[in-house]
Amino acid sequence: MSVKVFLDESEIPRQWYNLAADLPTPLQPPLGPDGKPISPEMLAPVFPMNLVEQEVSQERWIDIPEEVLEILYQWRPSPLYRARALEKALDTPAKIYYKNEGVSPAGSHKPNTAVAQAWYNREFGIKKLTTETGAGQWGSALSFAGALLGIEVQVYMVRISFDQKPFRRMMMETWGGKCYPSPSDRTQTGRAILEKFPDTPGSLGIAISEAIEAAVTDPTGETRYSLGSVLNHVMLHQTIIGLEAKKQLAKIGENKVDVVIGCAGGGSNFAGLSFPFVLDKINGADIRIIPVEPASCPTLTRAPFSYDHGDTAKMTPLLPMHSLGHDFVPPPVHAGGLRYHGMAPLVSQAAQEGLLEPMALDQLESYSAAIKWARTEGFISAPETSHAIAAVIREAEQAKEEGKEKTILFNWSGHGLMDLTGYEAFLSGKLTDHKMSEEELIENIKIMDGLPKPNMDKTGKW
Amino acid sequence: MSVKVFLDESEIPRQWYNLAADLPTPLQPPLGPDGKPISPEMLAPVFPMNLVEQEVSQERWIDIPEEVLEILYQWRPSPLYRARALEKALDTPAKIYYKNEGVSPAGSHKPNTAVAQAWYNREFGIKKLTTETGAGQWGSALSFAGALLGIEVQVYMVRISFDQKPFRRMMMETWGGKCYPSPSDRTQTGRAILEKFPDTPGSLGIAISEAIEAAVTDPTGETRYSLGSVLNHVMLHQTIIGLEAKKQLAKIGENKVDVVIGCAGGGSNFAGLSFPFVLDKINGADIRIIPVEPASCPTLTRAPFSYDHGDTAKMTPLLPMHSLGHDFVPPPVHAGGLRYHGMAPLVSQAAQEGLLEPMALDQLESYSAAIKWARTEGFISAPETSHAIAAVIREAEQAKEEGKEKTILFNWSGHGLMDLTGYEAFLSGKLTDHKMSEEELIENIKIMDGLPKPNMDKTGKW
Repeated sequence: MSVKVFLDESEIPRQWYNLAADLPTPLQPPLGPDGKPISPEMLAPVFPMNLVEQEVSQERWIDIPEEVLEILYQWRPSPLYRARALEKALDTPAKIYYKNEGVSPAGSHKPNTAVAQAWYNREFGIKKLTTETGAGQWGSALSFAGALLGIEVQVYMVRISFDQKPFRRMMMETWGGKCYPSPSDRTQTGRAILEKFPDTPGSLGIAISEAIEAAVTDPTGETRYSLGSVLNHVMLHQTIIGLEAKKQLAKIGENKVDVVIGCAGGGSNFAGLSFPFVLDKINGADIRIIPVEPASCPTLTRAPFSYDHGDTAKMTPLLPMHSLGHDFVPPPVHAGGLRYHGMAPLVSQAAQEGLLEPMALDQLESYSAAIKWARTEGFISAPETSHAIAAVIREAEQAKEEGKEKTILFNWSGHGLMDLTGYEAFLSGKLTDHKMSEEELIENIKIMDGLPKPNMDKTGKW
Repeated sequence: MSVKVFLDESEIPRQWYNLAADLPTPLQPPLGPDGKPISPEMLAPVFPMNLVEQEVSQERWIDIPEEVLEILYQWRPSPLYRARALEKALDTPAKIYYKNEGVSPAGSHKPNTAVAQAWYNREFGIKKLTTETGAGQWGSALSFAGALLGIEVQVYMVRISFDQKPFRRMMMETWGGKCYPSPSDRTQTGRAILEKFPDTPGSLGIAISEAIEAAVTDPTGETRYSLGSVLNHVMLHQTIIGLEAKKQLAKIGENKVDVVIGCAGGGSNFAGLSFPFVLDKINGADIRIIPVEPASCPTLTRAPFSYDHGDTAKMTPLLPMHSLGHDFVPPPVHAGGLRYHGMAPLVSQAAQEGLLEPMALDQLESYSAAIKWARTEGFISAPETSHAIAAVIREAEQAKEEGKEKTILFNWSGHGLMDLTGYEAFLSGKLTDHKMSEEELIENIKIMDGLPKPNMDKTGKW
């Protein structure tokens, strides 16, 4: 009784899918500090122009460079699994399929875009990439890609994680990445903050500012900045996940998926699996597409669709997205990758168009689902991924109640081997939930009061 | 340019290969404290009889139970890779293939036998398994298998590892395993040692004694002990690795392997890959088969072939094996899985018969190889596995010098994501080598002076 479906390397999708080409309402442009759309050229000091072109592209299909594919072959096409043991444990009539993105060397979906970004930068003559990282998932993925493509990688890691979670830093260093605690004395931003707050634990906002500053001030002009989620080109690179899944499902005669599920922080793993199915939905398919976020950081389910900054320090342009406000600091839930105040513009707008059914779930329910998963399917899930599993279990249990067959597909976005302390806290009863109160929500989103609102009248244009 | 070869689940080998059927000289039996061969029945309180039968079997092929296969499908057949990026970096004419055993939920080859052992125990009516673990690799593999098969698992973990390396313990607990620091107050052995040495860091020898005691003294009679290496049935269960590799190589037309390499501690991952090729060699194939051990624990390369105990406390029968003496405590190299004073009897005897070409390598050379590997092939290797990689690089460089094409196959036995502190120590220049001196060797092997010597006259019999 088969549990895995492989694709041969020769069957790998050779183009990425760009949802921007098919959204009913055109995607709104990012805005500069003056409230005016920023031109692609204004991004040139930050990103190489070939990636900026992808960022603004309206092409539906974009070729994946052959050399990128040759590195992706190291773990791609990733296997599609059927979760037969979980189905049996739940005694559900639902069929549960998942993409296993934990097979990549860095253990998650992140290398899909890290490799592509490093390659485009190298093509553009860039020698060094800077980035920020919270718990270290993205910093390690980019360090991996940099090692294989001969690009130097410099990571600004939030100081408290740098001190408390040394293993991701060690991964980065094993791949040759340089990892600095942020704030650092390497940037003006960092030095200014250290002078005022020598004992600050740091934040993602500060780390982003330092990474961008380090890129744009490098006198050689051969350094750029790289971001692991949120942006359009990152979503694009991840669509290989969903495109592979479609081929794999077709191979076993599963031509109708009823529910597609992924956890959503910045949005990239969710987008990667779901966007090819969003296209089906736009074309009339009867399919439910569910991004799952933590109740402690309920961007899609409770936050307004607004223009907002991607970072606390307001270094980034204003992006049209669901946002809890750029000052919001999510509570310290273990799913660090879901602790982001905003949501990718493409995901935000798809939700706004009614193409998605966002769901917010609690940390405890997610860990409980992850334990059930580990003891049936065997794999230990990343805490982010566990949110998707919890939603899958809800759907499967509902199918049982309704006595309805149903085909569920979700993205098992990464393993949790670097995140075991969360499991320990859960098993010893030390974890709590952090549902955002109405007052908190109102307080946080105030910060966007004066900011422009995206235009949804179908005439807006980059 | 393809880098991976998959087998479909339907192509998985359906029988294990038992080298005991083909060794030129029959394998010698274990001996009791009186120096006389022990009967299979004497092992009944420790192992279920169906596994004891496998332990003494002379059958060449043994069927893999269907239910065991169905759990193995969760990650098997494991992919066969061609290490093209490493080949290119080394500029070698050699072709390098490897089995990726890191794809299992526990991250190594260990679950291959953990699942089989848990299944046979369950078939025999056993409800609980006890075992020992050093750094935790085996304890976590057995906990994983227990979770999926509904067997309770109790692990005695060497105290110093229990205190210093909590992540493997958390893995065990995630799968529902119970993990106790050893010595514990749960056994007579443990209590006696704690009374004398309340601050002892523990040892594998003590942990084995506790696990066996806990199994044989359980009044329900429904508990048995499980061992993750050394024994014949463990080697047997691992042969699925080499049997898969043969099918995968045949699939791409690679019908001649020149060199087979695996690291060797207790011997199971090496045996798993190599034994099907040892059979070829017995049948006349021109093939070099290399077990790689650490220079700090040079069992096959420098220790005598003798009868010796498997543990320090002399709880186990005497086994015919290469041994550095049951009192030997290997230096604290990071490759914890290679720190064993003995070597599996089947591997020992194959070496004795001249079928193997053992090699001992230093820790620094191994880490240097692992770094090169991570920065070309992308995956971060377990420190044990790194010894095999170092040997592969030597072979590939020699092929370059000689301008000779050569096909190398090795076992990438596991990932190193739980072992990153070794990488950090290496990268910061804090690691040293620990070559065993001649004096140390002589001192350690004295302990076996009065013990019987195995009979190699081809008449010995279980």
